[in-house]
Amino acid sequence: MKIVLTISYDGTNYKGWQIQPAENTIQHNIEEVLSIVYKRQVAVLGASRTDTGVHAFAQRAVFEIDGNDLKIPVNKLPVILNNILPMDIVVTDAEAVSDDFNPIRDAKNKTYLYRIFNGEYMNPLKRNFLYHYRRNNLDVELMKKGAFHFIGTHDFKAFCSTGGNAKTTVRNIFMLDIGRTNDIISIEVKGDGFLYNMVRIIVGTLIEVGSGRIEPDCVAKIIRIGDRKNAGETAPSNGLVLLDIKY
Amino acid sequence: MKIVLTISYDGTNYKGWQIQPAENTIQHNIEEVLSIVYKRQVAVLGASRTDTGVHAFAQRAVFEIDGNDLKIPVNKLPVILNNILPMDIVVTDAEAVSDDFNPIRDAKNKTYLYRIFNGEYMNPLKRNFLYHYRRNNLDVELMKKGAFHFIGTHDFKAFCSTGGNAKTTVRNIFMLDIGRTNDIISIEVKGDGFLYNMVRIIVGTLIEVGSGRIEPDCVAKIIRIGDRKNAGETAPSNGLVLLDIKY
Repeated sequence: MKIVLTISYDGTNYKGWQIQPAENTIQHNIEEVLSIVYKRQVAVLGASRTDTGVHAFAQRAVFEIDGNDLKIPVNKLPVILNNILPMDIVVTDAEAVSDDFNPIRDAKNKTYLYRIFNGEYMNPLKRNFLYHYRRNNLDVELMKKGAFHFIGTHDFKAFCSTGGNAKTTVRNIFMLDIGRTNDIISIEVKGDGFLYNMVRIIVGTLIEVGSGRIEPDCVAKIIRIGDRKNAGETAPSNGLVLLDIKY
Repeated sequence: MKIVLTISYDGTNYKGWQIQPAENTIQHNIEEVLSIVYKRQVAVLGASRTDTGVHAFAQRAVFEIDGNDLKIPVNKLPVILNNILPMDIVVTDAEAVSDDFNPIRDAKNKTYLYRIFNGEYMNPLKRNFLYHYRRNNLDVELMKKGAFHFIGTHDFKAFCSTGGNAKTTVRNIFMLDIGRTNDIISIEVKGDGFLYNMVRIIVGTLIEVGSGRIEPDCVAKIIRIGDRKNAGETAPSNGLVLLDIKY
């Protein structure tokens, strides 16, 4: 049997999800508390390798248990783990799943939210969760026109940092919604999967569009040519939240 | 001439507003950057002495300048100060005022917001800004009935921690609004002034009312008797934000 955990975290003080030697990562903290609770080494497989500073509302992570481990009721697991986890990592759900469940392969879609603070004076209570962009006043209508070209199945080679290990750079984006409330611009994107830094490069490109440096219709061309140099900069990690993963 | 600054801060990592020897306080940081900018010792007078961990959206602080200081344009001051202030303190406005302006005496009213997270699993992105209360499901309708008794001019002796230096414990509360959105309960209170810990003791008492341990109408009696022992506990500082001060 396997257990899938739903995990919410503030990524500000972590070197991302993935375990790395001598670094404080979310996965490291999760494995550490599970190992305390089950009194043995526990390894988890995360659904998404969020980067340094990226947050999650509902990350998923899976680990195997045997009959002996069932002494701890699955529905009690979130409270037990939250009691020992640091305050910036919260387990919000635990569910038993079948042995063949794979949180990466079986994900139907993932949703990310990126938020930009496009005003002069940042609200300090939100400084770790919004990217403060103040060079220009961004035109959300232009951004919406540019965003349209991302929808659908495309080769997103131009929207991918080196260092990923995907077999193909073709992805399907189902939804890309942009809205503005006062100084905060929210960009919500849902797709069947995302390449390394893909959401942040899409956002960086939409910022170029919103500030008038790239024509909205040029986005189609940037996708077609497939050269990373033509897309915008990788937007900073602190504005990004992994919202949900559907199975 | 005097200058009044409007200051927004995340109080999580500070020992409150007021300068204390060997402690990291908001006032200390503000005076330090002003002293760098004006190349002399600058002392500020704050409108409100927020406690350790309490946040502010619009605190006010005043300092004197002379003709020489006017080399720095007042409207440029926020950007200049924000460049050297830590990220969790943001100056959002600077205005010249007359010499006789006093930010404490001249305040017409102050507004505070207190937020409670009344659900099982805290959103870790909000953990420093919401008090996580999960002992009971709070009944907001009961809290509203209890809140009614605070409105108006009363002697708030029962809602005051020792250690304040107010001449009188009589205060006028103009407004006390309570609302719930999903798991978050917001309590907004506006008054002509507040005693030491007064907002947090009012909130602590309303939590007792909302959880059924104190009858809503008992609040009137607790005010009348004027004994701190009858009121609720002082709610934690992290849920409190000084929203605004009107002059």
